Amino acid sequence: MKFTCAKNKLQEAISISQKAVTGKSPMPILQGIYISAKENQLTLIGSDIDLSIETKIQAQIEEEGTIVVDSKIFGDIIRKLPNSAIQINTVDNNAIQIICEKSRFTLIHMNADEFPSLPSINENMIFNMSQKTLKNMIKGTIFAIAQDETRPILTGILFEVNDKKLNLVALDGYRLALKSNNIDNENTINAVIPGKTLSEVGKILSDDDENVNITFTPNHILFNLGQTKIISRLLEGEFIKYNSIIPDEYDLKVTAKKGELLNCIERASLMAKDGNTNLIKFDIKEDNLIITSNSQLGKVREELNIVLQGSELQIAFNSKYLIDVLKIIEDDEIIMQFASSVSPCVIKNTENTSYTYLILPVRLLNFE
Amino acid sequence: MKFTCAKNKLQEAISISQKAVTGKSPMPILQGIYISAKENQLTLIGSDIDLSIETKIQAQIEEEGTIVVDSKIFGDIIRKLPNSAIQINTVDNNAIQIICEKSRFTLIHMNADEFPSLPSINENMIFNMSQKTLKNMIKGTIFAIAQDETRPILTGILFEVNDKKLNLVALDGYRLALKSNNIDNENTINAVIPGKTLSEVGKILSDDDENVNITFTPNHILFNLGQTKIISRLLEGEFIKYNSIIPDEYDLKVTAKKGELLNCIERASLMAKDGNTNLIKFDIKEDNLIITSNSQLGKVREELNIVLQGSELQIAFNSKYLIDVLKIIEDDEIIMQFASSVSPCVIKNTENTSYTYLILPVRLLNFE
Repeated sequence: MKFTCAKNKLQEAISISQKAVTGKSPMPILQGIYISAKENQLTLIGSDIDLSIETKIQAQIEEEGTIVVDSKIFGDIIRKLPNSAIQINTVDNNAIQIICEKSRFTLIHMNADEFPSLPSINENMIFNMSQKTLKNMIKGTIFAIAQDETRPILTGILFEVNDKKLNLVALDGYRLALKSNNIDNENTINAVIPGKTLSEVGKILSDDDENVNITFTPNHILFNLGQTKIISRLLEGEFIKYNSIIPDEYDLKVTAKKGELLNCIERASLMAKDGNTNLIKFDIKEDNLIITSNSQLGKVREELNIVLQGSELQIAFNSKYLIDVLKIIEDDEIIMQFASSVSPCVIKNTENTSYTYLILPVRLLNFE
Repeated sequence: MKFTCAKNKLQEAISISQKAVTGKSPMPILQGIYISAKENQLTLIGSDIDLSIETKIQAQIEEEGTIVVDSKIFGDIIRKLPNSAIQINTVDNNAIQIICEKSRFTLIHMNADEFPSLPSINENMIFNMSQKTLKNMIKGTIFAIAQDETRPILTGILFEVNDKKLNLVALDGYRLALKSNNIDNENTINAVIPGKTLSEVGKILSDDDENVNITFTPNHILFNLGQTKIISRLLEGEFIKYNSIIPDEYDLKVTAKKGELLNCIERASLMAKDGNTNLIKFDIKEDNLIITSNSQLGKVREELNIVLQGSELQIAFNSKYLIDVLKIIEDDEIIMQFASSVSPCVIKNTENTSYTYLILPVRLLNFE
């Protein structure tokens, strides 16, 4: 194998394919990046079996071949080289030589035959959407996936296509995040994608209107971004019927300025750190929301102007769940809907229904 | 106690005095900030006994008094409050009330009588220098202090005034850093300041030409920045006679571009991480410096144009010590002086003698 390519392009390709390399795999080959040089193209693949990322860049190939090199050290070397042409060729003793200006590295490589092959996916059932939209939907839901593996299905995000609408749903037993978007597709899809996959996909998607093509098989999802393909295993099992969790009716509706509400909750939660309960209390009355919290260190009272439709209510929350949601929302104004002090709070925006967040309250014995 | 002050000023004063609070003190009172309200001024003090930082800001005092409040929670609260006027007053049950716009905190306080009093220092033997210069001298030496407590005196920096010259010296048994500056003072001083103190002083000093007044007592140093005073215990014991370590003579002198040399060493050290030895080898000949390193993963060869005066030499180093020095130096060109492969390398700048760095080589059995 022998090829020459631009340093910055190679660095970017390593950075993309590396996102699938966990570095803690029991299989040493999976700590490597697969590099194939063929027909004026380099193909780089990183994989942890569940997730594989393949990306292609142009290169001048003098001699075709395939190798696997340690992802970390190879990435570090390329990053530190000057921004110039890099020549890489195999030498004796399972090694490659990396030459860039006056730098010359010799690095052992692994046998490319041992690298697992990617699942073969027939890209026939495709739907596409803008990368920016998908990135935004991932960001708006991924924080709500379950962090522990007690119920593995909840470590993923439901990817549901129905009635020309795409819904992404995450829930962890305490809160739920739902982002929706209209799409031009007649198919029905119901698949659960691992959170780790969508977290890495979110980092690779661009912020502009370029499209991503998405294909499903019974066990896999393929995101095709053109030069880059991301293939992931789907999670097995049935996702929770989330629609039955979201209440249709409510007794009171609070409209509030998002920034102000977030600031008040963040300040109130400073006093709620005792014993990690993060407990804050809402006292909703007339046109005021009073937020209080107390601990051994002292207490806090915050007051916020709101517009209230409905009766008064006292309800308590784990402040972390509210802060997580309010930090994600980009709207200036939000709506909170409540039914009772033991029913979930639903957070929506004022204009459309592109998101729905639900947070369970904390049951209090009494309200001091 | 009752006063009103601007949020941003109070926040800054907390941030400064907090730098002396370690948060791990066995004395609970030392996790607090001492606040005294008197004659239209607030005085804030943070202390860990060895190091105390006192800073003053203007405030409208309605009722004088002194309290101690937990440094972390008080700092967090003030930081999160809106940028507005803050009113603080004592209430019943050893608590203070903090009011800012619609936020109202009640926070327990500690008894100010338990707070240790600052060492009383008579500011008569003063010399002064620009804050910027001192900041620069600290930055240029502090990385070379000893990290372990085997020889406590080496965890400090020698502060030496002699012949109208100030020298700061740090050394850890493997390398030495010396920064010098002319000062207009006839005194002779020889004191060792704890590294922790100078690290915090470096963060508080400004980047401009304002002066800092420095006073020594047999056991303490006082940095007076006007509104802020930093008082630190000195380290006891004799510093190593560093002058005898710096060689006067050398056999070869290498002039090199600093940025290029740093890049080459950083790349070479990628292959030197095996077993944490960071071993890299210099092969100095004619107008080239060849840097090599190898490990189980492979090997590297870097080549750099230099100007050599003297004979050829092969010498090995721990790359970390070279990288630390080269990252600190701001000059484009540096000089390295060598006597033999077992004598220290001395790094200076080409124009004057404002710094001298010394690095011990690693003894090799043979040079492959």
